[in-house]
Amino acid sequence: MKTNFDKKISSFKEQISQRIGEILAKKEPVSLYEPMRYALAAGGKQIRPVLLLLANEAVGGQTEHALNAAAAVELVHNFTLVHDDIMDNDDLRRGRETVHKHWDKNVAILSGDGLLVLAYQTLNQTTTVNLQRVMTTFSKGILKVCEGQALDKEFENRDSVPIDEYFTMIEKKTAALISMSCKIGALLGTENRDYILAVEKYGHLLGRAFQIQDDLLDVIADERVLGKNVGSDLQENKKTFLILHALQNASGANRKFLKEILSEKNISRQKVEQAIHLFAEMGTIDAAKSRVRHELEEAKETLSIIPDSPAREYLSHFLKILLNRNY
Amino acid sequence: MKTNFDKKISSFKEQISQRIGEILAKKEPVSLYEPMRYALAAGGKQIRPVLLLLANEAVGGQTEHALNAAAAVELVHNFTLVHDDIMDNDDLRRGRETVHKHWDKNVAILSGDGLLVLAYQTLNQTTTVNLQRVMTTFSKGILKVCEGQALDKEFENRDSVPIDEYFTMIEKKTAALISMSCKIGALLGTENRDYILAVEKYGHLLGRAFQIQDDLLDVIADERVLGKNVGSDLQENKKTFLILHALQNASGANRKFLKEILSEKNISRQKVEQAIHLFAEMGTIDAAKSRVRHELEEAKETLSIIPDSPAREYLSHFLKILLNRNY
Repeated sequence: MKTNFDKKISSFKEQISQRIGEILAKKEPVSLYEPMRYALAAGGKQIRPVLLLLANEAVGGQTEHALNAAAAVELVHNFTLVHDDIMDNDDLRRGRETVHKHWDKNVAILSGDGLLVLAYQTLNQTTTVNLQRVMTTFSKGILKVCEGQALDKEFENRDSVPIDEYFTMIEKKTAALISMSCKIGALLGTENRDYILAVEKYGHLLGRAFQIQDDLLDVIADERVLGKNVGSDLQENKKTFLILHALQNASGANRKFLKEILSEKNISRQKVEQAIHLFAEMGTIDAAKSRVRHELEEAKETLSIIPDSPAREYLSHFLKILLNRNY
Repeated sequence: MKTNFDKKISSFKEQISQRIGEILAKKEPVSLYEPMRYALAAGGKQIRPVLLLLANEAVGGQTEHALNAAAAVELVHNFTLVHDDIMDNDDLRRGRETVHKHWDKNVAILSGDGLLVLAYQTLNQTTTVNLQRVMTTFSKGILKVCEGQALDKEFENRDSVPIDEYFTMIEKKTAALISMSCKIGALLGTENRDYILAVEKYGHLLGRAFQIQDDLLDVIADERVLGKNVGSDLQENKKTFLILHALQNASGANRKFLKEILSEKNISRQKVEQAIHLFAEMGTIDAAKSRVRHELEEAKETLSIIPDSPAREYLSHFLKILLNRNY
C-alpha cells in the first residue's frame, strides 16, 4: 500500500519528468539533443528536485512556481554526471551505457554543456522577485561542484589526504548541489531567513551523509542491487571516508597495507576483500554508519524551527529512507 | 600615432581584462582555476566584449553598467574555445598549447565548465531592470553555439553539405555569440526596440562575414601570421564556404577531385595546394571575398537608424578592420 509520502514523491517525480520532457522535446540537431534525452530518460532518483519541491512546500511555497527550478537542478545534476563519467572513465550509469560510451567523448562534452545551458535557461523562466538571488545561489552551487570534482581528481593522485580535506571535498562535490536545491526551494517559497537557512543546512547535512553512505555502500552493498562491482572506489584509488578513517587509526602492518591499497592501480579482488575485512575489524564500517546516522539526526533537528506540516514531515521521512537505502 | 578608435578599443580591452582578472584572481583549487587563468591570459582579440561595449555606448549606455556583461561574453567565448579544442584535437591556440594539451582532457572539460558557470555568475551581477531578458538572450546565444558546434562535427562526417546548411551552421557556431554580445550591449543601454534589433542584426552579419573570412584566411593567409598551417580546414574535412561553393560550381574532373578532398583524411600538401589553386581558378576565392564585403556593407547599413555618435562610427570602423584583417 502506498503511503502519503510515497504518493507525494511519485506526484513530484511525475511533474518533474514531464517538465524535463517538455524542455528537451523536439529540439534539433539530434546529435546534440538525443544524448541529452538519453541521459535524462534513465530517470534516476531525482533526489535534488524532489527535495527542492518538498523544501518549497514546507516553507509555504507553491509547487507550480518551483517546478522550473526543480527541473533546472535535475538538468544540472545530469550535466555533472555526463561530464564526470568521461573524467572517471565510467562506462555504466543506472544500468546503461554512459553517454561517452554510447556515443563518444565529444558528444558527451557537448551535450553536457547543453544540459548546463538548458538548466540556466529553465531556471531563468521562474517567476519570482528573488530571481537574481536564486541565480546567484545556483551559480555558487554549481561552481562548488566543479571545485569538488577538481579536488576529487587531485586526491586520486595523492598518497593520502587528511580527513578534514575529504570533508571539504564532499561538501563541494556532493552536499553543495543538494543544499543549493533545498535553499532555492525555500527562496521561492518564503522571505523568512531562518527558514531558508534551516533548509539549506538540512540539505548540507543530508548531502554529507549521502556521500559517506555512498562510500559505505561501495564496500558493503549487494553487487546485484548496487549495479556495479563492490570495492570499485578502492580500485580507482578514490579517497573515501572508509580508507581515510582506517588509515588514520591503523599502525604497523595494517597501515602499510592500506598505504599500498592507496597507491596501487587495479588491486586484486583478494586485496579488496582483505581491505573490507580490515575496515570491519577496525571499526571503520561502524564509524561510517554512526557518522551517517549522526548527520541525519542533526539534519532532522534543523527542521524543528519550521512550522509542522505534512511537507516538513516528508523532509524528515526522507532522511529515514536515505538511512535505509541499499543502492 | 594612435587614432581615437585605437584609444577607445585599448581602453575597453584594458577594462575587460581587469574585470576578468578580478573574477579569476586567488580562486582555489588551483587545479580548476589555473587552467582558466591560463586560457584567459592569452588575451586574444576580445572582439565580443569590445563589440558589446561599443554597442552599449552607441545606444546611449554607460560602460560601467555593461562591464560585467562584457566580461561574461569573453568568459563564454573562452569556454567554447577550451571545449572545442578538445573536440577538434587542436594542440595550439594563440601560439600556445591548448588547455587539454598543456594539462589533459579532464582538466580542460572541468575548467571549461567552470568558465561557463563564472560567465553566468558575472552576468548575473549586472544591475539592470532587464536582467531576466538579458539572461534569456545569453542562454539562447550559448545554446546556439552548442548547436552550431554539433552541426560542424556532423558535417565532418558527411560527404557534402548544401551551402544553406553551411550558413545555418555558421550562424549558430559563430554569428550567434557575436550577435548576442551586441544585443546584450544594447539591452543594457536602451529601451528602444529598433536600436536593439539593428545592433543585433549588425552582429549577426558581422559574425557571418567573420566566419567566411576565417574560411578564406585558412587558404590565403601567410602561415607565419596565421599561426597555423595553410589548408588545415581542408585536412580536417571541414565544410567551409570555399569547398562547398567550389563543389556547387564544379563538374567533371574538378568535381571528382573536390569530392575526394572532402572524403579523404589527411590529404597531402600537394593536394592542398591543388585545391587552393582550383579555388582561385574557379572564382571561389573572389566569391568569398565579395560575400564578406557584401555582409559587412549590409552590417554598416543596419547602423544607420541609430543616431550618429563616435561609438556608432567605431562600430562602422570595426567592420573595415575586420575586412582587412590577415589573421
